[in-house]
Amino acid sequence: MSDAKKYTLGALADRLDAKLIGDENCLIDGLATLKQGGPGKLCFLSNPAYASQLPECRASAVILEEKFSASCPVNKLVSASPYVSFAKASQLFDNSPVADPGVHASASIHESTQLPENCSIGANSVIAAGVTIGAGTIVGAGCVVGEGCTLGADCRLQGNVTLYHGVRLGNRVIIHSGAVIGADGFGFAFDGSKSVKINQLGTVDVGDDVEIGAGTTIDRGAIDDTVIEQGVKIDNQVQIGHNCRIGAHTVVCGCTAIAGSAVIGSYCVLGGASGVVGHIQIVDRVRVGAMSLVSQSIFEPGDYASGTGIMKTTQWRRNAVRFSKLDDMARRVKRLENKEE
Amino acid sequence: MSDAKKYTLGALADRLDAKLIGDENCLIDGLATLKQGGPGKLCFLSNPAYASQLPECRASAVILEEKFSASCPVNKLVSASPYVSFAKASQLFDNSPVADPGVHASASIHESTQLPENCSIGANSVIAAGVTIGAGTIVGAGCVVGEGCTLGADCRLQGNVTLYHGVRLGNRVIIHSGAVIGADGFGFAFDGSKSVKINQLGTVDVGDDVEIGAGTTIDRGAIDDTVIEQGVKIDNQVQIGHNCRIGAHTVVCGCTAIAGSAVIGSYCVLGGASGVVGHIQIVDRVRVGAMSLVSQSIFEPGDYASGTGIMKTTQWRRNAVRFSKLDDMARRVKRLENKEE
Amino acid sequence: MSDAKKYTLGALADRLDAKLIGDENCLIDGLATLKQGGPGKLCFLSNPAYASQLPECRASAVILEEKFSASCPVNKLVSASPYVSFAKASQLFDNSPVADPGVHASASIHESTQLPENCSIGANSVIAAGVTIGAGTIVGAGCVVGEGCTLGADCRLQGNVTLYHGVRLGNRVIIHSGAVIGADGFGFAFDGSKSVKINQLGTVDVGDDVEIGAGTTIDRGAIDDTVIEQGVKIDNQVQIGHNCRIGAHTVVCGCTAIAGSAVIGSYCVLGGASGVVGHIQIVDRVRVGAMSLVSQSIFEPGDYASGTGIMKTTQWRRNAVRFSKLDDMARRVKRLENKEE
Repeated sequence: MSDAKKYTLGALADRLDAKLIGDENCLIDGLATLKQGGPGKLCFLSNPAYASQLPECRASAVILEEKFSASCPVNKLVSASPYVSFAKASQLFDNSPVADPGVHASASIHESTQLPENCSIGANSVIAAGVTIGAGTIVGAGCVVGEGCTLGADCRLQGNVTLYHGVRLGNRVIIHSGAVIGADGFGFAFDGSKSVKINQLGTVDVGDDVEIGAGTTIDRGAIDDTVIEQGVKIDNQVQIGHNCRIGAHTVVCGCTAIAGSAVIGSYCVLGGASGVVGHIQIVDRVRVGAMSLVSQSIFEPGDYASGTGIMKTTQWRRNAVRFSKLDDMARRVKRLENKEE
Repeated sequence: MSDAKKYTLGALADRLDAKLIGDENCLIDGLATLKQGGPGKLCFLSNPAYASQLPECRASAVILEEKFSASCPVNKLVSASPYVSFAKASQLFDNSPVADPGVHASASIHESTQLPENCSIGANSVIAAGVTIGAGTIVGAGCVVGEGCTLGADCRLQGNVTLYHGVRLGNRVIIHSGAVIGADGFGFAFDGSKSVKINQLGTVDVGDDVEIGAGTTIDRGAIDDTVIEQGVKIDNQVQIGHNCRIGAHTVVCGCTAIAGSAVIGSYCVLGGASGVVGHIQIVDRVRVGAMSLVSQSIFEPGDYASGTGIMKTTQWRRNAVRFSKLDDMARRVKRLENKEE
Repeated sequence: MSDAKKYTLGALADRLDAKLIGDENCLIDGLATLKQGGPGKLCFLSNPAYASQLPECRASAVILEEKFSASCPVNKLVSASPYVSFAKASQLFDNSPVADPGVHASASIHESTQLPENCSIGANSVIAAGVTIGAGTIVGAGCVVGEGCTLGADCRLQGNVTLYHGVRLGNRVIIHSGAVIGADGFGFAFDGSKSVKINQLGTVDVGDDVEIGAGTTIDRGAIDDTVIEQGVKIDNQVQIGHNCRIGAHTVVCGCTAIAGSAVIGSYCVLGGASGVVGHIQIVDRVRVGAMSLVSQSIFEPGDYASGTGIMKTTQWRRNAVRFSKLDDMARRVKRLENKEE
């Protein structure tokens, strides 16, 4: 980890698009939660649910909206978007290790691959033939980059990432450990007695500023490519099937499963462990609840969900039994209504 | 990637079990979708939903059933099973890189392991003691193959696959990156204050022609072995617990979770993100819907599902609240019916 | 694999906290199920459902409760907790390979990292700068251990495990292949047009005797740390978001998804493929059913579930349609009741 970074509140106000009310020379050496923050720490208040913690705050400064300013006992960085200002602060105080420049002696680079001067290739990583890597890109230890991949500038592959042949990454793409991009889509033709493999001839095209979480898998297309548009953020252990298209700036939370050829719009949010069946379409700005299954196309923006709430198992079991005869119950209610008329 | 392959339609008709209606000398250099196909491309029509695209097709040829032949404006490859013929075509046009033969200098092979002449061991892979590898088998970069594993002929492990000790693979087994075969089954005995580990003494036995997706995990058995029978196809991020048996030619879609000691028949299809609880049995030819939970044994072939449909969250919330009192509603309906008599 | 181990029944009675009824010199060379066991094998009976197999048992001995002793035709090891005794037996008969001591020549160890004499570092693994490793710890082949990590004594990382920088493991922690500990938590602030990354400045703190399954991911905290308390057992492909706290001795079954900042008590059991939404609290000794979603805090110990049962798809579809109008049905039942009064 790098040495702790320090900034004056005056400098931070500039960098975070915030107005300082307080001591511009006060030195900040890190971030903290409202509850834990002490001297030298910068906190933030974004969710009003935590506003009650503000009067007791003992940090050196708080990022907050104007309306909370009066109840803040310490230095204030007033921001129109405290959460965005906090995000920028988290980047300033980043403590992750800086990658060693150059190619580690133990990395295996195919002789046909030419690397830019200012990239970093980690120990025991493997770069196959015909790979193109942009300036400033970091490939972590133990990565496997397949034949003919194209990585843009300033990308970061963490340790043990796997890219199959021909995968294309834009600029500033981050891929976390254990992710696998470009494995074969799941395609078979059943011939009456066995499954005949459909070789997957497309690849995966990942746009600029995409982040892909640990253990996430994105399959290559069968004929055309699987496409992840710019600015998409994908959490851990997400599965994206062949020939999907994920629209720009969509957010896919952890453990979501998206079946093949689904086309998802821009600025959507797929909740954790949600699912999308294959060959359907979801328009822009749809939000899907946690563990909900999108079983058909969605043509209208808004919030969607499926499933049932959590309850005591004894109560749940009784209700679930009734669910299995719900159609019958509906018919009986209808019959009662008809009788009454 | 390899150079583009080319075949005449006459040659393709032979290889794809199809009858050519058209120019046998027409040269095909790749596959395309009906919509995208242009000169030199071969398309297919399997799903009747796409038949309307046929008259506009500008590809050089289309694989299709006899009944669609009349409405096809270009060369036709008439097949009884267009999807199977297309699968075979996809294999002919495969563009994936050919693995370098031999053992990469950076691979670490235990001195007790003897390799056949015509296998390929990728860069930075690790082969432990006492491993047996069949002819024509390819182990990708960064793989770890544990002590005493047996790999059959013509298998392919993609990059960063892990096999624990003693795992057995049949012939022509494909395993995608990030998959882990033979990790400890999840077994603990609770002694009143803590979980006591049950060491897992079995292994995993994988039959011929099995394909295992990226990030999939298959645990070793507790005492006996976990068994994946021949021809089983497993998608990405599937979890198969210890001592499961998956019957021949069953298809397991992505993100499915199968708990320990479940016994699943042959020719089943487990939909994406479905679940199977432990210690149950599913007969042959059962199809389970996406994100459905098989909570008890299934003794009759057919289609099964659980869960609810997707809907607007506002509507869902009202219905979910009612579900939590469904047993009460059922009793009230019964009371109304009794009163009426 | 190691050579088969052998113990006399007399020795086993001591080691398993059991009372021997039978031949103390009888030699046991392995474990077996009641059904499969033959000469030289030791079986166990814990689940009464298998008691009917006891009279036919042909193994050399059975671990069982006193009450089943009379119907056992062979040597008996009578235990108050047969399952715990069996767990101990499984450890005695462990057949997994012993790791080679020392640092493999192909491993890449940063010069600033000093290793204890009796650790084992596998082939092609990478240990970054400033890492501390305890005595007896084994790091498998292909692992990547990030800058400044601390591993306690007698830990075991299987092949291809990834630890990001600064992760702390207690003693006797087991981590299976493909697991990723300390990847960035999924945090972004939406600025109206794009997601701004919140750098994740915390880390992951894993207590003593924790086991983490294959392909499991545990994210580092945003500001504070993600905490896994002692004795927690986590199965394969579990996702634990940033800033979660999992209480001591809790058991998390395979494919469970836990969103950020969830606080889970001690001695809980989260069933397979279950989910927990973010920022909620679950008290001690809560058990959640398979594929259930904990959508709100749980303040009372006990068993909880959500979802519906499995049924034929034709029947399910009719019921699911009715579910989508359940609120309406409830109102109509209420109206019928009102009318009747």
